[in-house]
Amino acid sequence: MRPLSLNTVTVREKWGLAECIEGCARQGIPGISPWRDVLQAMGIAEAARQIRDAGLGVSGLCRGGMFPAADAAGRAAAIEDNRRAIEEAHALRAACLVMVCGGLPPGSKDLPGARQMVADGLAAILPEARAAGVTLALEPLHPMTCADRSVLSTLGQALDLCDALGEGTGVAVDVYHVWWDPELPAQMRRAGERIAAFHACDWLVPTTDLVFDRGMPGDGVIDIAGIRAMAEETGYDGFTEVELLSRRWWAEDPDEVLRLIRLRHEALEELSPVP
Amino acid sequence: MRPLSLNTVTVREKWGLAECIEGCARQGIPGISPWRDVLQAMGIAEAARQIRDAGLGVSGLCRGGMFPAADAAGRAAAIEDNRRAIEEAHALRAACLVMVCGGLPPGSKDLPGARQMVADGLAAILPEARAAGVTLALEPLHPMTCADRSVLSTLGQALDLCDALGEGTGVAVDVYHVWWDPELPAQMRRAGERIAAFHACDWLVPTTDLVFDRGMPGDGVIDIAGIRAMAEETGYDGFTEVELLSRRWWAEDPDEVLRLIRLRHEALEELSPVP
Repeated sequence: MRPLSLNTVTVREKWGLAECIEGCARQGIPGISPWRDVLQAMGIAEAARQIRDAGLGVSGLCRGGMFPAADAAGRAAAIEDNRRAIEEAHALRAACLVMVCGGLPPGSKDLPGARQMVADGLAAILPEARAAGVTLALEPLHPMTCADRSVLSTLGQALDLCDALGEGTGVAVDVYHVWWDPELPAQMRRAGERIAAFHACDWLVPTTDLVFDRGMPGDGVIDIAGIRAMAEETGYDGFTEVELLSRRWWAEDPDEVLRLIRLRHEALEELSPVP
Repeated sequence: MRPLSLNTVTVREKWGLAECIEGCARQGIPGISPWRDVLQAMGIAEAARQIRDAGLGVSGLCRGGMFPAADAAGRAAAIEDNRRAIEEAHALRAACLVMVCGGLPPGSKDLPGARQMVADGLAAILPEARAAGVTLALEPLHPMTCADRSVLSTLGQALDLCDALGEGTGVAVDVYHVWWDPELPAQMRRAGERIAAFHACDWLVPTTDLVFDRGMPGDGVIDIAGIRAMAEETGYDGFTEVELLSRRWWAEDPDEVLRLIRLRHEALEELSPVP
């Protein structure tokens, strides 16, 4: 079976990192991807120890990025914070540091300018990432997040950045963000071995919120197995990380949520066995 | 001043077509773009007469499209309905028939299949469009509408379809749908004289609804003047059509909404005078 990983934001309303680690062990989920808030709440060294002792792989650390800011001091602070995130990802032996690159600075309409701030921020932290052996996984986010979360909007744009930045960069492919893209098959082929993370959830019809209404895999319209197959054609054999930002699922019992995630993952396996 | 046009959906909760025609005349707005529901409520011939008598240009007819369906009968019905829309656009002497191409059929995850249904539907109606002299303006819709409104998601994808279909096709560029696209400047240049319509509204931060929370031009983050300039560099000198689907603005006095649209249009003019 393909390895499954839990992104901790999926149960963020009820569980801290300790419960997530125990829950993954209990539900037979072999990977975890912590957000930095729960990681820091536990302490980096203790988290690394508990994750290692539980035998979990770390599919990524969420998240670096958020580079654009209205002034130079704000941009410098973001770069410093990203350097700490690189250290944390290194301490966890995470497969990558997921980069949610940030939106427009408040009040700005200068989209090319914000995109330049992202490129500049990535270039600034790349030496530390290379030195630490931490892959910066650029995550294109759905275009509906362009104003306030990510001016990095497509896989093609992310790969253009990887081309420009070179070694130490890759992409995080979240089906929720890229499923609509007519260029997806071509850009997945282009990505090749640069796919550093594969995230799954589903697009609900209707979707009632731009951020907090992601669907459980299988409840929506995304051909998750098809996109996973595109990743595997490039040689990707890493985790499928389930990351749900969902008011509906946050209200449920986390153990039930993890159990359902595992069942849905197994159902996708039956639909599309590992070749 | 650049010509301004009112899309009737902007005031759909309070005005029918007659009030829209009178309102445009009263507020000094020289163009109109009716939706088919208000057009049919008045009757095509009567609408054509009233619009002509008021001296209004018709920047487009909204809307054809909605081709994908679960079965052949559904797809055939969509094609027949599009043929009637072409006749209506011809009767109005509309600059184009705006094509909102449709989403996935209910229950389907087959995005390439739905895109093929769109290409097939357009090909089926193209002879009638050519015979009537009606340009089919393919409108890429924001990727957040991909599941339920438009599998046509980017300007590049629309132009690929135009390339394949040839004479009688063009694109409708709505800044709301395309502003985020890193390929926008290149694809606008590629569009050239195929830009058949230019629509404006704004992206609000935060946006609270995926369909009905569009912003009044100037209230959001879109560089509308910059995108209009891209259109004009291709030679486009037609209407700026304001199309607001907004629960907030639907609740207001339509005359005030039209007055504000005209003021915002004039403000954009000052920001970016016609060269």
